[in-house]
Amino acid sequence: MTANELFENIKRKKSFLCVGLDTDVTKIPEHLFEEDDAMFQFNKAIIDATADLCVAYKPNLAFYESLGIEGWDVLERTVDYIRTNYPDQFIIADAKRGDIGNTSAMYARTFLGNMNFDSVTVAPYMGEDSVTPFFAYENKWVILLALTSNKGAFDFQFTKDAETGDRLFETVLKTSQKWGTTDNMMYVVGATKAEMLGDIRNIIPDHFLLVPGVGAQGGSLEEVSKYGMNSQCGLLVNSSRQIIYADDTENFAIAAKEEALKVQTEMATHLVAKGLI
Amino acid sequence: MTANELFENIKRKKSFLCVGLDTDVTKIPEHLFEEDDAMFQFNKAIIDATADLCVAYKPNLAFYESLGIEGWDVLERTVDYIRTNYPDQFIIADAKRGDIGNTSAMYARTFLGNMNFDSVTVAPYMGEDSVTPFFAYENKWVILLALTSNKGAFDFQFTKDAETGDRLFETVLKTSQKWGTTDNMMYVVGATKAEMLGDIRNIIPDHFLLVPGVGAQGGSLEEVSKYGMNSQCGLLVNSSRQIIYADDTENFAIAAKEEALKVQTEMATHLVAKGLI
Repeated sequence: MTANELFENIKRKKSFLCVGLDTDVTKIPEHLFEEDDAMFQFNKAIIDATADLCVAYKPNLAFYESLGIEGWDVLERTVDYIRTNYPDQFIIADAKRGDIGNTSAMYARTFLGNMNFDSVTVAPYMGEDSVTPFFAYENKWVILLALTSNKGAFDFQFTKDAETGDRLFETVLKTSQKWGTTDNMMYVVGATKAEMLGDIRNIIPDHFLLVPGVGAQGGSLEEVSKYGMNSQCGLLVNSSRQIIYADDTENFAIAAKEEALKVQTEMATHLVAKGLI
Repeated sequence: MTANELFENIKRKKSFLCVGLDTDVTKIPEHLFEEDDAMFQFNKAIIDATADLCVAYKPNLAFYESLGIEGWDVLERTVDYIRTNYPDQFIIADAKRGDIGNTSAMYARTFLGNMNFDSVTVAPYMGEDSVTPFFAYENKWVILLALTSNKGAFDFQFTKDAETGDRLFETVLKTSQKWGTTDNMMYVVGATKAEMLGDIRNIIPDHFLLVPGVGAQGGSLEEVSKYGMNSQCGLLVNSSRQIIYADDTENFAIAAKEEALKVQTEMATHLVAKGLI
């Protein structure tokens, strides 16, 4: 998918919502376990309920890996299900990988080749040759961690460079934007640090940002939109727990749809305010 | 495994070799494909041939994930095989994970709980709360990236802190050593930057270091031993390609054993020189 195609989807759906599929078998409704394949059936129901209201899905790899082979099977079928039934969705492998070149090339093959994700989240610590192998797949994306939504972000990401005065997340943005383009690279910027989005937009005005931390982690959609939106929207805002665990009864999919609708409705107002729709 | 138990294994075997199981189906001997289960059979033969000469095995997750479910199955059986047949081996999941707390907890469960690895490599970019969930498993280890062996290490890891003058890898070492102990935390320090090991030993004199980059990547075992060895050895030096792909005929396991023996023989001389055996 190109950046422009993604923007077209955002305008058509009046939404820049990404639904995080952090599917935890200890949190999904009990009645699903009366039949086989509860984890996949949960994902399928969540996807069917929300697909009209979002432009992206983001399975969190940790939740699938923790179930071993069974989890990988559910992950593969979930990606296939989205790809087949909702081909306009942008699918993100939230994997936070990154290693020496030949190993990153293997991770790229896994997620962008074999499994047909549109993108994969990548950690920047190991630098350029740990990131560029992911660009080998046409119309696929790297989503590089820049400023994360957790408390630990303050341990290293704000370290000021003695030469340039830039904080580490700014150095990461400035250095890495030369590695890719606005059509194959996005950045993770946490919503819990929305006030930083102005500084970030000064460095990368045109790149899409994947913004976690709205909802359960406390970030504000209004602030994110105010500081982060550009002329092509440039935002994918993720919500996971708030949507997928809105209810733990047989009503869970309808409750998820209602939560997604609330977020989408607010998103539409921000897109209108910016004059994008 | 405790640090002391690991040191005892090192003395007994006169080796601080870690064999990297970067098992690539495009590189393993062709004759193995005449039977089912070639990837596992390759691992099994390499392990049986080298177990007397090394103290650790390090499967590289990317190589298993790239085969999907089949690869995870081989990974799980490989860990079980080592655990059952060579219980003194220290097993490292080279996964380079790291995410917000609830997600890192899932990764910890995957590798340290369910799969019974002794340790997992973790990327430091997201800070303390992305690392500490891995300490929930007794006698298990985090191996944190500090200074990696690749060219991209120069992109961010040498960025100097304006306040302290420390380079980022030094800041990572100083900050993170408060999170764990010398019995549950090691660091990745690339052999291609062996001259930095002196500086690193000034900061963390007692921690074990996992050192990749000897062999195919060009690092020198002599230099690593000279600058990095401490009074409890404090080193696990990894070699992958040089050992496991020493030969691609039916002779591959014997060739791997010969390569491992060469490395172990040199390691013994460095342990003697240091007065540790």
